[in-house]
Amino acid sequence: MKKSGGTATVERRAQQRLSDDKWRTALTSIEPNKILVRGYPLDEIMGRLTFGETIYLLLLGECPTPGIGRLMEALLVSFIDHGATPPSTLAARNTATTGAPLRACVAAGVLGFGRYHGGDIESCMQFLDAGLDLVRKGASYRDAAVEIVDRWEQTGEALPGFGHRFHTRDPRAARLFQMALELEVEGTHIQMIRAVEMLLHTRDVADQHTITINIDGAIAAVCSDIGIPPSIANALFIISRVPGIAAQAQEERDRQQPMRQIDPKDHVYDGPSERRLPERRK
Amino acid sequence: MKKSGGTATVERRAQQRLSDDKWRTALTSIEPNKILVRGYPLDEIMGRLTFGETIYLLLLGECPTPGIGRLMEALLVSFIDHGATPPSTLAARNTATTGAPLRACVAAGVLGFGRYHGGDIESCMQFLDAGLDLVRKGASYRDAAVEIVDRWEQTGEALPGFGHRFHTRDPRAARLFQMALELEVEGTHIQMIRAVEMLLHTRDVADQHTITINIDGAIAAVCSDIGIPPSIANALFIISRVPGIAAQAQEERDRQQPMRQIDPKDHVYDGPSERRLPERRK
Amino acid sequence: MKKSGGTATVERRAQQRLSDDKWRTALTSIEPNKILVRGYPLDEIMGRLTFGETIYLLLLGECPTPGIGRLMEALLVSFIDHGATPPSTLAARNTATTGAPLRACVAAGVLGFGRYHGGDIESCMQFLDAGLDLVRKGASYRDAAVEIVDRWEQTGEALPGFGHRFHTRDPRAARLFQMALELEVEGTHIQMIRAVEMLLHTRDVADQHTITINIDGAIAAVCSDIGIPPSIANALFIISRVPGIAAQAQEERDRQQPMRQIDPKDHVYDGPSERRLPERRK
Amino acid sequence: MKKSGGTATVERRAQQRLSDDKWRTALTSIEPNKILVRGYPLDEIMGRLTFGETIYLLLLGECPTPGIGRLMEALLVSFIDHGATPPSTLAARNTATTGAPLRACVAAGVLGFGRYHGGDIESCMQFLDAGLDLVRKGASYRDAAVEIVDRWEQTGEALPGFGHRFHTRDPRAARLFQMALELEVEGTHIQMIRAVEMLLHTRDVADQHTITINIDGAIAAVCSDIGIPPSIANALFIISRVPGIAAQAQEERDRQQPMRQIDPKDHVYDGPSERRLPERRK
Repeated sequence: MKKSGGTATVERRAQQRLSDDKWRTALTSIEPNKILVRGYPLDEIMGRLTFGETIYLLLLGECPTPGIGRLMEALLVSFIDHGATPPSTLAARNTATTGAPLRACVAAGVLGFGRYHGGDIESCMQFLDAGLDLVRKGASYRDAAVEIVDRWEQTGEALPGFGHRFHTRDPRAARLFQMALELEVEGTHIQMIRAVEMLLHTRDVADQHTITINIDGAIAAVCSDIGIPPSIANALFIISRVPGIAAQAQEERDRQQPMRQIDPKDHVYDGPSERRLPERRK
Repeated sequence: MKKSGGTATVERRAQQRLSDDKWRTALTSIEPNKILVRGYPLDEIMGRLTFGETIYLLLLGECPTPGIGRLMEALLVSFIDHGATPPSTLAARNTATTGAPLRACVAAGVLGFGRYHGGDIESCMQFLDAGLDLVRKGASYRDAAVEIVDRWEQTGEALPGFGHRFHTRDPRAARLFQMALELEVEGTHIQMIRAVEMLLHTRDVADQHTITINIDGAIAAVCSDIGIPPSIANALFIISRVPGIAAQAQEERDRQQPMRQIDPKDHVYDGPSERRLPERRK
Repeated sequence: MKKSGGTATVERRAQQRLSDDKWRTALTSIEPNKILVRGYPLDEIMGRLTFGETIYLLLLGECPTPGIGRLMEALLVSFIDHGATPPSTLAARNTATTGAPLRACVAAGVLGFGRYHGGDIESCMQFLDAGLDLVRKGASYRDAAVEIVDRWEQTGEALPGFGHRFHTRDPRAARLFQMALELEVEGTHIQMIRAVEMLLHTRDVADQHTITINIDGAIAAVCSDIGIPPSIANALFIISRVPGIAAQAQEERDRQQPMRQIDPKDHVYDGPSERRLPERRK
Repeated sequence: MKKSGGTATVERRAQQRLSDDKWRTALTSIEPNKILVRGYPLDEIMGRLTFGETIYLLLLGECPTPGIGRLMEALLVSFIDHGATPPSTLAARNTATTGAPLRACVAAGVLGFGRYHGGDIESCMQFLDAGLDLVRKGASYRDAAVEIVDRWEQTGEALPGFGHRFHTRDPRAARLFQMALELEVEGTHIQMIRAVEMLLHTRDVADQHTITINIDGAIAAVCSDIGIPPSIANALFIISRVPGIAAQAQEERDRQQPMRQIDPKDHVYDGPSERRLPERRK
C-alpha cells in the first residue's frame, strides 16, 4: 500500500520490526516442545490443576488459592445449563436442526448471550459498587440499598441481578452464597446485594419472581468480592454456559429429525428421575 | 399456515399436544426453584463435582469415576490455549479489534475450529478403529499399523493425529498418555496410536514435524479408550479451547489499539518467565 | 519464535518479503483515494451497475451480460425471504430476543444455512452433471433421468433439488425457469432437471410435496447453465438470504418483548394483503 | 412446566391460541404455492424489481421510487468490498484458512462489524440530527456545525462519519453525494455534514486523514435524507458488505494453503489493471 524507499529503508524497517513494532501478549508462550501458560508448563499443569483452576489462571494470571479455586468450580458449574428454553439454547438448537456442524451451533448459542441474558452481571457489579460508595461515605447498608434501588427504579429498567422467569428462590444463588461463607471469601458485595434483597422483601410485592436474587446477581457479587473485574466475570459467564449449549445442540442432532419446527414450550424431560450424588462425593 | 377444522379438531389437537407431540430432552429438568442436571440437583453438584466432572456428567449422562474424572480435567486443560497464532484465535482477535463484544469474538473463534483445526479428532478415531479391526482379526499391532498407514497414504492427506507446526514432541500428548497409564485407563487405542508412531519413527523421515503424535491424536486415542464417542470428543475439544479464545480476545481489547492490523508473526511474549507450580500442587 | 541471524539475514529476509513471500488477491485493490473492484473504479460502478450485477462482478471477475445480469437479480430476489419459520430465521430471532446487536443475529442466522437448508444446491449440481455425463455418452435425457434417480434412491436420501415442506409447485422455481427461457440462457442442466421432474410425475406418488422442483434445484440448474461453479452458487445463496435474516431479526427487535419463547407455528401475518406491483414495473 | 387443568382448560387455551396469543409478522406471508413479500407475489417481483429494490421493499415496506431505487443500488454497491485488510475480512479469512465452510466464514466476518467498523453510521445520524435541531431553532448551518463539533470534541472521541485510514478524499462518499444531487433527493442532512466538512477544512489540520467525510458519514447523511431510520441503515450496511466478505473468504479457500498465518500487510493485488466499464454501461 505504501511505497518503499530502497534497500536502506527496508533494512531499517526490518530491524525496527524486531524490537519496537512487535505487539505483546502475556498469556501463553509457545516454543518448540514447550508451552507455558502464564509461565507454568502446560504439561505440568495437567493433572495438577483442574480445568476450573486453569481457567482462573489463564484469565487472572495467577493460580487461585484453594478456597477461591473451589468457589470458581462452583461458579462455573452453577451456570452450566438451564434446560431447553433459554433463547441462546434455542438459537443453537435451531442451528443444529439445519444439519450445521456442532461448532456453528455453539457459535450461534454464544451470540445469544445478549443484553437481557447474562448482560446483567456487569451492570449488577456497578449497581453494587454504587451502594458500597455510599457505605464508605458513612451510610448503613440498608440506607445505601434504599438509595440505589430508588435511583435505579427511576430508569424504569428491572433491577440488575434480581428476578427470574421460573424461580422465586434461585437454588444456585443460595448455594453460591453459602459456599462463599464457608470458604471465608464473603465480602462487602455479598452484604450489599443481601441488603437490597432484604429491602425488597419488606415491600409488598405481588410477583415474587421479580425480587429474588438470580444467578447473575450472585455471580456479580461473588466475583466482585474475590476481586474479579467485570470483563473477566463476563468471560466466565460465557465459558460456563458453553458446555450446556454444546450438550443441547448435540442432543438435538442425536435425537431429533432435521429441519423440525422447535416450539420451546412443547417439550418434556425424559431423563433420570431426581437422584443423589454417590456418597463419596459428599 | 393450515386451516383448522372447528372446535372439535382444536380440542383434539390440543389434547394430543399434551402427550404424543411433545419433543423430549434428557439433559436438564427445570421446575420452580429446582434444577436437575441428569437427575442431580445442580445446587448439590456445586462444591461437590468440579466443572470438568460436571461437563462429563452433562455430556455423557453419568458421573465419571475418579480416574476418568482426573483424566477429563487433564484433557480439558491440555487444549485450553496455544498462544496468539492459531487461526481461530486470530479470527477472535480480529473481531475484538473492531470493538465487538466478547461473545461475538468467542463465536468468531469457535467458527475457526474447522476441518484442519480440531477436525482431526474424529478422523483419527476412525483411523485407529480401522487398525483395531485388523488386530481383532489376528494381525499384530505392528502389521495393523503398516496396513492402515499404507491405506491412508494413498489418499494423499496427512495422517490424522500426527504432525505439528511447532512441536516435534508434543508435551501435552506425552503427559496425557502418561496419565492414562498411571490412572490405569490406557487401552487398545493408545496401543494402536503408539504402534503407528513407532512405525513412523523407523522410517527415514526428513521432517520430524510430520511424525509426532499431536494433541488431537492423543485426545482421540484417550477418548476412544474411555468410551467417549466421536461427537462428544468433538464437543470436548470445542469446550476446552473456549477459555483460551476468550482470554486472547479479552487481552486484545485490554492491551491493543482498536482497528489495528494484526500480523500473527509479529508478536512477543511479555508475561512471567518459566516457573514451577507451588509445592502443594505437586 | 525463530532466532534471527544478524543484520545481513534480516536485510535479506526483508527484501524477500517485498517479492516472494507476499500473498495475492485479485478482488479489490485499495490505494489512497482509489478503490478498484476487479479493475473497475468503485465510484464508476456506483450508479452504473446494480448491486446484483456488482455481486456477480465481484464473485465471477467480469460484468455479466445484460441477460445474465437480469437473471442474477431474479435469482437473488427469489431467495430473499421465506417467512418466519425457517430454522435459520428462528436462530436469528432467538438471538434477537436476547437483546443482541443485529450483526450477531445475522451471524446466527447465516450459521443455520446447514446441510439440510441450502446445502442441496451443490449436491443437485453434481446430480445433474452425472445425468449429463450419460447424455454425452449417448443416453436420452429420459434414460439418464431414470438412471440417476435409481442410483440416488439407493442412498436412501431425498433427491437433491426436489421437495418442499409447504409447496407442491414452487412459484420461484417456475418463474426462474421461465426467465431463463425468455433470456435465452436455458441450457442442458435445466433440460436435465425437467427430465427428472417429468419422470417423477409419471410415477404414482402419494405425497406431491416430495417431487416438486424446489428453489435449490432451480438455482442449481440455472447456475450450472450460466457457468457458475458450485462454490459461487453457494455464496450467492448465502448473500441472497441475508436481507431476509436481517429484516426478520430487526422486526423481532422492533415488535416483540425481549426474552420471549418463540413458537414458530404460533404466528400470524398482519402485513399488507396481496397486491400488484405498480404498472410502470411491469 | 405448568400443570394443566383438565380438558376444559385445554380447550379454552387452545382456542385462545388461535387468536390472542399469536405473535405477528408483517414481512412475508407463506401459503402453499404462494409467497408474498410485503404483499407482492415473490414470483411477480422476480424480473421486475432488482435485488437492491427488493431489499428496500423488504426492510421499509414499500417499493422505492425510481430515484431512491437508484440511490439504494449505489449505496449498497459503495460498501461491497474494501480489500483484504479490514478486520472483519481478516476474521473471515482466518476462519476460511481452518477449512471451515463458507457460511461460518461469513458469520465470523459479520461479527467484526463492531463499534469501530460500521458502528459510526448510527452515531453520525444522531450527530447530524443534533445540528439540524439547532438549525431549526434559527442557527446557520455553519454555526450549528461549530457547536456540534465543539460538543463532540469534548468527548475525546473521533468525529462520527469522518476520517479514513487510507483515503484523504473518499471516492465513494463523493459519488454518493453527487448522485443524491442528480437524483434530487439531497436534503438537510447532506447539507449539515458538508457544513461540518467545510468547517474542518478551514482549520489548520496536520493529518488530512482525520477530516474527510468517510463512507459511513455519507451513508448516514443520505439515509437520513431519504427517511431511513438508523436501525435500517445499520441493516443495509451489514447486507452491503456480505458479498465482499463471502468473496474474500472464497478466494482464501481457492488460492491459499490451509492453516496459514495471515499477515494483512503482506499482500499484493494481482487482479486486472484499472479499466473502464463497457460503453453501454455509461
